[in-house]
Amino acid sequence: MITGGGGFLGQSVARALLARGGLASEPGGPAQLTDLVLFDQAFPTQRLEDRRVAYVTGDLLDRERVDHTCARGLDAVFHLASVVSAGAEADFDLGLRVNLDGTRTLLEACRVQKAPPRIVFTSSVAAFGGELPDTVVDTTAPMPQSSYGTQKVIGELLVNDYTRKGYVDGRTVRLPTIVVRPGKPNRAASGFMSSILREPINGEPAVCPVLPEAQMWILSPQGAVDTLIHAMELSGSRWGWNRTLNVPGITVSVAEALSALARIAGADARARVRFERDPAIEKIVLSWPARFRTERADRLGFRADSGIDDIIKAHIMRTPG
Amino acid sequence: MITGGGGFLGQSVARALLARGGLASEPGGPAQLTDLVLFDQAFPTQRLEDRRVAYVTGDLLDRERVDHTCARGLDAVFHLASVVSAGAEADFDLGLRVNLDGTRTLLEACRVQKAPPRIVFTSSVAAFGGELPDTVVDTTAPMPQSSYGTQKVIGELLVNDYTRKGYVDGRTVRLPTIVVRPGKPNRAASGFMSSILREPINGEPAVCPVLPEAQMWILSPQGAVDTLIHAMELSGSRWGWNRTLNVPGITVSVAEALSALARIAGADARARVRFERDPAIEKIVLSWPARFRTERADRLGFRADSGIDDIIKAHIMRTPG
Repeated sequence: MITGGGGFLGQSVARALLARGGLASEPGGPAQLTDLVLFDQAFPTQRLEDRRVAYVTGDLLDRERVDHTCARGLDAVFHLASVVSAGAEADFDLGLRVNLDGTRTLLEACRVQKAPPRIVFTSSVAAFGGELPDTVVDTTAPMPQSSYGTQKVIGELLVNDYTRKGYVDGRTVRLPTIVVRPGKPNRAASGFMSSILREPINGEPAVCPVLPEAQMWILSPQGAVDTLIHAMELSGSRWGWNRTLNVPGITVSVAEALSALARIAGADARARVRFERDPAIEKIVLSWPARFRTERADRLGFRADSGIDDIIKAHIMRTPG
Repeated sequence: MITGGGGFLGQSVARALLARGGLASEPGGPAQLTDLVLFDQAFPTQRLEDRRVAYVTGDLLDRERVDHTCARGLDAVFHLASVVSAGAEADFDLGLRVNLDGTRTLLEACRVQKAPPRIVFTSSVAAFGGELPDTVVDTTAPMPQSSYGTQKVIGELLVNDYTRKGYVDGRTVRLPTIVVRPGKPNRAASGFMSSILREPINGEPAVCPVLPEAQMWILSPQGAVDTLIHAMELSGSRWGWNRTLNVPGITVSVAEALSALARIAGADARARVRFERDPAIEKIVLSWPARFRTERADRLGFRADSGIDDIIKAHIMRTPG
């Protein structure tokens, strides 16, 4: 099952799983994918044409719907559904309900399965903030400065504890900001970092709400899919007792991203980006760390992108037209 | 209001507040105590004789009861009610409901007050665990190894975020193990550290479930009361944005505690303690750190006890008969 299965990341993971035909579980070799449930409030009009896919339109807050969906038996869950950063900041109650209560509903539905299902939960660099060290390392204390980050860290703690109790086999990855996200902007405060590349490439204007010096810790869409699937495929024993992980990314400033844009898509594209500071966005995004040393994830075989140029080129390759 | 107001710590805080007549709030000087609500599921038969005290028998899970109690207006809350460590480990659902849902109910009741009330929330050394450094410092990442610790850290995060949003003026203290607790043993996994001192002094036998080398980070009952009241009295600006604090304690091994017992209460008393290892208790207690450097709390004026001898002597002084 993929919660948030109608979203861009959920759809990407679904396509990747269908193409691979299953998950490589250790040590038994690949487990065949026979049924894939996409759970979300809404789905793209263009559906994945595959008999293995079932679409369930529902809300994580609808406990009956979640329980009913999970009652057919679950082996593995990618839990991607979430109210994103600016959304959870604007609507505190909605954030708590979806990001905290929704995650609990899902964990409870997993707990009653015959065998503890694997769950990959997506946390975020928003787990960190405050008085940050120059480089975040594996032992840096989470210190969220947003409701979204707070709710993500709470989810990490619950996934860890449900795993420790043997109720689920959970794994949490703290994802970097995903760049370049395709499609329309969402309410993620970090969304501008995709907009300032995606819109100019499409011939459209874009607004950058932070200064050119602002840095972010980023991962490409393909890198995110690979990260999520690798997190699922790793054995529980390789994960060990600590089920929360900072995963690799690269540090890129707005200025570096725009230089790469000019190199790859031309000065015209670059000229479509205008700076207009937005204090609300700045406050959230600048509270996140942009520099990590991810030794544990490196040892576990997680990989980052080679650089911003390749990320932009891959985006252009994938863009229709 | 004091949640858990019927418990040993709640009663001690209540007595201290009544004796002081109020809280010293900065910079306005002392605020007079006119009404003190003790909220708990049960109360000692011997009640505090004071017209300022109201007893409310209720459950934190009874949202209506909490809302109704808080509706009369709240200035300050000591949130001490909790399912303790071994209890939350034995009954996972009860722990989540009381320690997580109960805390949320209280925070919501505070959020609708005219002005954001001060809340002192009691977390614990159980927030820490796993691969611990030799000495826990202010920046050490919480890594709970029990459901109790998990739920406490979640409470810390919520208190921080409700404070950041301006809904409450919260402060969380991670209390050391309180030794010597008076009265009967409770379900706290750390309870033996009080038992092995309290029972022998009363002429009764006691069982120590861990090895003599086991160390704990402890604070006396009086030290805990002082810590909680100081946490309440400090201004929000002195707390700053980070509302979670490791507070001072002292590191004491079981062997050191028993030597002190022999010195103060005699070899006969010491001889009443028998060792019988309990793996379930050991697993929880040994996952907690016993050594801290509490620089931030020291700067904020929090203080530890002078030593285990004084803690035992103070306990004997306070014990009736």
